[in-house]
Amino acid sequence: MTQPFSIAIAGLGTVGSGVLALLARNGDLIAARAGRPVVIAAVSARDRLRDRGVPLSGIRWYDDPEAMVADPGVDAVVELIGGADGVARQVVQAAIAAGKPVVTANKALLALHGVELAAWAEQRHVPLAFEAAVAGGIPVIKLLREGLAGNRIERIAGILNGTCNFILTTMREGGGAFADVLAEAQRLGYAEADPSFDIDGIDAAHKLAILAALAFGRPVSFESVHVEGIRCISPLDVAFAAEFGFRIKLLGLAQQTERGIAARVHPCLVPEGSSLAGVEGVFNAVVAEGDFVGRVMIEGRGAGAGPTASAVVADVIDVARGRTTPVWGAASGALSDAPSAPMSDHAGCYYLRIMVTDRPGVIADVTAALRDEGVSLESMLQRGRAPGEAVPVVLVTHETNETHMGAALARIALLDAVQEAPTLIRIEQI
Amino acid sequence: MTQPFSIAIAGLGTVGSGVLALLARNGDLIAARAGRPVVIAAVSARDRLRDRGVPLSGIRWYDDPEAMVADPGVDAVVELIGGADGVARQVVQAAIAAGKPVVTANKALLALHGVELAAWAEQRHVPLAFEAAVAGGIPVIKLLREGLAGNRIERIAGILNGTCNFILTTMREGGGAFADVLAEAQRLGYAEADPSFDIDGIDAAHKLAILAALAFGRPVSFESVHVEGIRCISPLDVAFAAEFGFRIKLLGLAQQTERGIAARVHPCLVPEGSSLAGVEGVFNAVVAEGDFVGRVMIEGRGAGAGPTASAVVADVIDVARGRTTPVWGAASGALSDAPSAPMSDHAGCYYLRIMVTDRPGVIADVTAALRDEGVSLESMLQRGRAPGEAVPVVLVTHETNETHMGAALARIALLDAVQEAPTLIRIEQI
Repeated sequence: MTQPFSIAIAGLGTVGSGVLALLARNGDLIAARAGRPVVIAAVSARDRLRDRGVPLSGIRWYDDPEAMVADPGVDAVVELIGGADGVARQVVQAAIAAGKPVVTANKALLALHGVELAAWAEQRHVPLAFEAAVAGGIPVIKLLREGLAGNRIERIAGILNGTCNFILTTMREGGGAFADVLAEAQRLGYAEADPSFDIDGIDAAHKLAILAALAFGRPVSFESVHVEGIRCISPLDVAFAAEFGFRIKLLGLAQQTERGIAARVHPCLVPEGSSLAGVEGVFNAVVAEGDFVGRVMIEGRGAGAGPTASAVVADVIDVARGRTTPVWGAASGALSDAPSAPMSDHAGCYYLRIMVTDRPGVIADVTAALRDEGVSLESMLQRGRAPGEAVPVVLVTHETNETHMGAALARIALLDAVQEAPTLIRIEQI
Repeated sequence: MTQPFSIAIAGLGTVGSGVLALLARNGDLIAARAGRPVVIAAVSARDRLRDRGVPLSGIRWYDDPEAMVADPGVDAVVELIGGADGVARQVVQAAIAAGKPVVTANKALLALHGVELAAWAEQRHVPLAFEAAVAGGIPVIKLLREGLAGNRIERIAGILNGTCNFILTTMREGGGAFADVLAEAQRLGYAEADPSFDIDGIDAAHKLAILAALAFGRPVSFESVHVEGIRCISPLDVAFAAEFGFRIKLLGLAQQTERGIAARVHPCLVPEGSSLAGVEGVFNAVVAEGDFVGRVMIEGRGAGAGPTASAVVADVIDVARGRTTPVWGAASGALSDAPSAPMSDHAGCYYLRIMVTDRPGVIADVTAALRDEGVSLESMLQRGRAPGEAVPVVLVTHETNETHMGAALARIALLDAVQEAPTLIRIEQI
């Protein structure tokens, strides 16, 4: 057996501890697959004394992760600190500067600084691997960047945030309110104390930005992703969606359009029998449609110590074997300069729920507003009667676009009988 | 841009023509992803005059594929002739001997001669890539060998033959008899004139042997795969399965057991709501369960010119980029010597359909035979009455094993009232 491959790990939280456990448990097969033993030479974390379930004896400890990067006994650096800036970014930059391969699970870093980091890594011929940054244990980076590399990708769609998918699944199964289910997710450890990063769609948007860059062969562009979260989803919407034959999912979607690459994260109604509708709880899934391969879907656990460690170690094995790929799938100079299509270009069908005072003429006013903006209806549902009180009216439109829907919504919001801001959810056939 | 990467293609049937079309249509993005242009320097096929939809001008033609391999302008050889022996094998051996990387879609070659070929390729440091050999466009070789490389795989299961899945799906949807639906599949081009390779499970077994080798890190072993096909499935079984909440699928299954690696291809009853049950028609899918990643499933088109060409070109890009992996995921010397578990070790639940003469005491005799071999029943269904004629009796067992089931079947077959060989289908919770 040749020289061991010595890695240093910066950050020993859930994922870092998972990587320690994985390398300890499966060291023999990892050595066989990497072509040499993978050993942890050094680690760095905030709290030296915390029990991580795996002994750290024989591993050099650094309080300063940048000093660890400089350790001459370290061949590659695994960054598991997280966050787009601060220490995580410094560690990655220092490793690239030192010519040491980097493996990271940091989606925010890649989504926000990926163009700059890719250019540096390329200049210095340093591999920068990030399978764990998207969809946890699902090797979707490898799927898009290598497995489907011969295809022009037409569309990708994914359930990219396990917290949101758990909340939406639980709301559907139990009928609970958003706030109650969120509290339950927090109790179970599926949602953070400050959940906004997940439930407002930011985390999914980071991941979608990365996937879209790989799928369409262009530099990552987080700021061009349209982002909406799931706070607006009520049990009423979940129930009405089911009545119309749909489930509600937070999707990340990117596609090639005539006006450029459209990338968006928002709640969607997806047909009940579709494959993404069946992806429930904390599972993630990604669908890719290529011009030669057709439709491919991959599904698995999108978070957690084990799955994320699996992705990190796959990258480590690739790097140890010398299997490397440019960050965005091609050299910076060979990437596409396709523009981003604005969300205002989006066309599709819409679900619309309006809370109105139950009195004669309201439906006529609402449908007139839609008609006046050229929006035609596929179906309408008004359930229950409560004269003088608020009742939901649900409408499903034929294909129209954001501009017309926006104008119609503005008209509807002005109607006296409308009691709160309408809820609008886009319908996706995927 | 650096030197082009010049490939030669041996075999221009459906897949070969697909590769020509793919390289012609997506040459720009393939060049970006491969780091250099991929050009077809030479081709060889039986019929020079056949129209393949893509002009062959500027490409050197060889009647003799081995002479093509020797062409000094050829950097790598793509073998798309097929068949475990004969010309295909000679071409691959000649390329390895000449030190030229090989990309092949040949599952039979890999399943039957993969150990020997891997040893040669390793000795000569020549990449031998075969993504297209299993599940068409689905990059499942890459998934198992690289994407999940950190995991000890506990089980894999797959729908690996599109012909069988099309037949079973069509039987379920339309209620047709096996022979009629097979004829329809032949008319549609989904089944060969001689269909036995597909419907008797051989093709799926070749693919399963390859996947099991990768999943469990051991040399490929086709002869240790237990193989049964779908000829025995009747519309009665399809209907009864549905009544019990199952669908019938031809699965390839491999798992780590206490006595070694068990690998088998046979029809299975899978629960209607399971993800593999939802994979219909010509689609393929593979589920892998790893100790850290948990369950991962990938689904897509398992055959056809476009999907298979997608897999071939992904391999070509890998080879052009210098991303290579030992054939079975690790060097020959580092592979596991885990034994194969015999089918007689298999334990599980069984579906059993018996055609019996409708007369008093028959059920008592059948159930006594099962009881005497220690097989206990979960449920039983006898539908319709036709005194003196043959009626189906369907039984679902609790967990038992092959030995007990075999002994019980032998007893049942001896009963006077039993009119034909019983149909036995294993039940899989996957």
